[in-house]
Amino acid sequence: MAIITALETFDVRFPTSRTLDGSDAMNPDPDYSAAYLVLRTDRSDGLCGHGFVFTIGRGNDVQTAALSALAPMVVGRTVESVIGDLGAFARQLNGDSQLRWLGPEKGVMHMAIGAVVNAAWDMAARDSHKPLWRFIADMAPEQLVAQIDFRYLTDELSPTQALAILRTAEPFKQERIEQLLTEGYPAYTTSPGWLGYADAKMQRLTREAVQEGFRTIKLKVGESVEDDIRRCRLARETVGPDIAIAIDANQRWDVPQAIEWLRALETFNLAWIEEPTSPDDILGHAAIRRGVPSIPVSTGEHTHNRVMFKQLFQADSVDLIQIDAARVGGVNENLAILLLAAHRGVRVFPHAGGVGLCELVQHLAMADFIAISGKKEDRAIEFVDHLHEHFLEPVVIKDGRYLPPRQPGFSAEMHARSLDEYRYPDGTAWQDTPSAVKA
Amino acid sequence: MAIITALETFDVRFPTSRTLDGSDAMNPDPDYSAAYLVLRTDRSDGLCGHGFVFTIGRGNDVQTAALSALAPMVVGRTVESVIGDLGAFARQLNGDSQLRWLGPEKGVMHMAIGAVVNAAWDMAARDSHKPLWRFIADMAPEQLVAQIDFRYLTDELSPTQALAILRTAEPFKQERIEQLLTEGYPAYTTSPGWLGYADAKMQRLTREAVQEGFRTIKLKVGESVEDDIRRCRLARETVGPDIAIAIDANQRWDVPQAIEWLRALETFNLAWIEEPTSPDDILGHAAIRRGVPSIPVSTGEHTHNRVMFKQLFQADSVDLIQIDAARVGGVNENLAILLLAAHRGVRVFPHAGGVGLCELVQHLAMADFIAISGKKEDRAIEFVDHLHEHFLEPVVIKDGRYLPPRQPGFSAEMHARSLDEYRYPDGTAWQDTPSAVKA
Repeated sequence: MAIITALETFDVRFPTSRTLDGSDAMNPDPDYSAAYLVLRTDRSDGLCGHGFVFTIGRGNDVQTAALSALAPMVVGRTVESVIGDLGAFARQLNGDSQLRWLGPEKGVMHMAIGAVVNAAWDMAARDSHKPLWRFIADMAPEQLVAQIDFRYLTDELSPTQALAILRTAEPFKQERIEQLLTEGYPAYTTSPGWLGYADAKMQRLTREAVQEGFRTIKLKVGESVEDDIRRCRLARETVGPDIAIAIDANQRWDVPQAIEWLRALETFNLAWIEEPTSPDDILGHAAIRRGVPSIPVSTGEHTHNRVMFKQLFQADSVDLIQIDAARVGGVNENLAILLLAAHRGVRVFPHAGGVGLCELVQHLAMADFIAISGKKEDRAIEFVDHLHEHFLEPVVIKDGRYLPPRQPGFSAEMHARSLDEYRYPDGTAWQDTPSAVKA
Repeated sequence: MAIITALETFDVRFPTSRTLDGSDAMNPDPDYSAAYLVLRTDRSDGLCGHGFVFTIGRGNDVQTAALSALAPMVVGRTVESVIGDLGAFARQLNGDSQLRWLGPEKGVMHMAIGAVVNAAWDMAARDSHKPLWRFIADMAPEQLVAQIDFRYLTDELSPTQALAILRTAEPFKQERIEQLLTEGYPAYTTSPGWLGYADAKMQRLTREAVQEGFRTIKLKVGESVEDDIRRCRLARETVGPDIAIAIDANQRWDVPQAIEWLRALETFNLAWIEEPTSPDDILGHAAIRRGVPSIPVSTGEHTHNRVMFKQLFQADSVDLIQIDAARVGGVNENLAILLLAAHRGVRVFPHAGGVGLCELVQHLAMADFIAISGKKEDRAIEFVDHLHEHFLEPVVIKDGRYLPPRQPGFSAEMHARSLDEYRYPDGTAWQDTPSAVKA
């Protein structure tokens, strides 16, 4: 009987603020970071589980402390009790009555729980010798429903309704697996559109993105309406009418301001406006959607749990959503969100980028295609070409599409030397850092 | 020119789980705790500021780490730059682009910011030799509006509208101060109603509460509908028709379940149902309110920021609200919430209890009466008689009413010996603790 012997944590930060990669209207100088953990076991084959929370720098130490705070609830348990019932494991961590006060189900503690839950799924998929997308896809509908905490969801989606969605997908799973393996899954790219980039750089990267096969690109907006008009016009001129252009305001606007600003951008045939205002403002998103009906509205990368997603659907606030693999309470809660979206027929464009978010979220999108929504060609996973080299199994993009991961697990594992070199503040990457960046 | 020289933190926990004080349907065994901080200065009179986040045990270390993470943004600043513009100070902490990722404006990091902001208000009130309620009440309307971050609020409340509310109150401020000093502010009590108490104890404490002058009592519900019917009936028999009885489900129900459960309690003429479901479920509260129109609906102690309160009002989700002094981003955000409530004419019944929440929130309710809503007799501050002895200026309750604090500051300071004795895990109070409680 194998035991989980340790929950090791690492505060890993990359000094990305030295360039302007990742700059947007709310995040001018991110240092992409990971509060990273490994679940160790005493099993003879070295079975382990990796997971992390993505942050953008300061506070990554607090996020790491939150991971450590969960160790007493995990260490000493049998491997079987965790990976044998991942639904119960996730409910136990999320349901801890004392930790719940720190959210509930939001912020630092919820993201920490999500990372530990994700590490347990990584371990379970490794144990079954399958990549996570396949591990999920191979679950029977009843098994999959058992992963989900329906608390606070039943006014929108009952276990019976979820089961019906999954059973509808069941007969098509095998052929979809084949499709996925041959076709891959559509990607879109944000790499050209960071706010800190000059026009010429944006245009060059946009042109390259289209040449590489991407059918959708995304621009950051929200600093100045004149700049945004110019950038949208230049991007549209660069890509022509057939490539989709999305924009992302990263929560910059109040509701009336969003409506006014977006009306100035209506002529560019935009695919969506992402995060026009506070991620908490369900009714605000609905008002913006009514106010600018020609631009689809989206949010989700900061939507903190399934209860918020439920309401985004109930209030008709969004045309599509982002999901994020490291924001909510782990795979289980993301499966609930994917089921809620499928129930309403809402398209999902998973959020990625940062550190390792592409590696994680591709599994969820692919499992959704096979076992839940059955859709992939009307949606796409975000792709940003940063920091993949730190992962044992980096994403593979070909002709603007994600190819399905082949290795067992959740693709979450970082190279030991990366954990070492970028460990904050004592890794070698931080030794020659000006104190202004380091503070 | 005085400087803030340190942000000291303390992980303080009280082993309240040994009794069943504080037990409810979601929190069976809380250890009331405080992630506590002191802002030290080098001013010759020893000026300082105290603040804390209330938690219920596990995770208080993470919350304390989050306080420490804010030290670089505070230590080294001049006292004047902080207490001279508390609005700017709060906006700077809340607006830090990297820390914002950990919320935004929710959970562990937001509560930490709230505690540091509260400590700065404590310092400012001490500096002006006024209790905080009076310090706020004495602000001119323009000064008070300048404290508030209107981001994400302007579709509901503009600075101009807020100013109009404050100017309406202005001529009555002096007479309300006199009223407050002579009459105190109504309190209600939850002490009789913890879920772990036997019927006879509940009835005895209820009787005593009425004898002590309380006009409203609150019972915890949500474990079993039969128990709740019996407890409500016994309480109603005990107090007669003239005392208000509120109930609190602490987020226990799904929406359809809440409606069904509450219909079984309609006959007891209840003052409100508090936290019937997830605090995030704005639309769910609205559905419950429509489903059981005879019982007023309330929430707020876990409502994480002003954007959520805004929506509770916009969706007609609540008849009244709780505010909590240590959940949101400090005094500034609570002033915004009080203005939003006044704008809609919604009554406020501040949440208290725990450790020091009574001490803090009384100041906000009293300032609201004088300078914002102008109301106090149609509302009441929660009172629970726990752990007040650890504070330098504990609340004073007389004839079921809070008497206004007299000492300068926010009444947040704990005795040094309490910080010492209950410091976790090395304080003497924890030395003889069975490991089951300690884990």
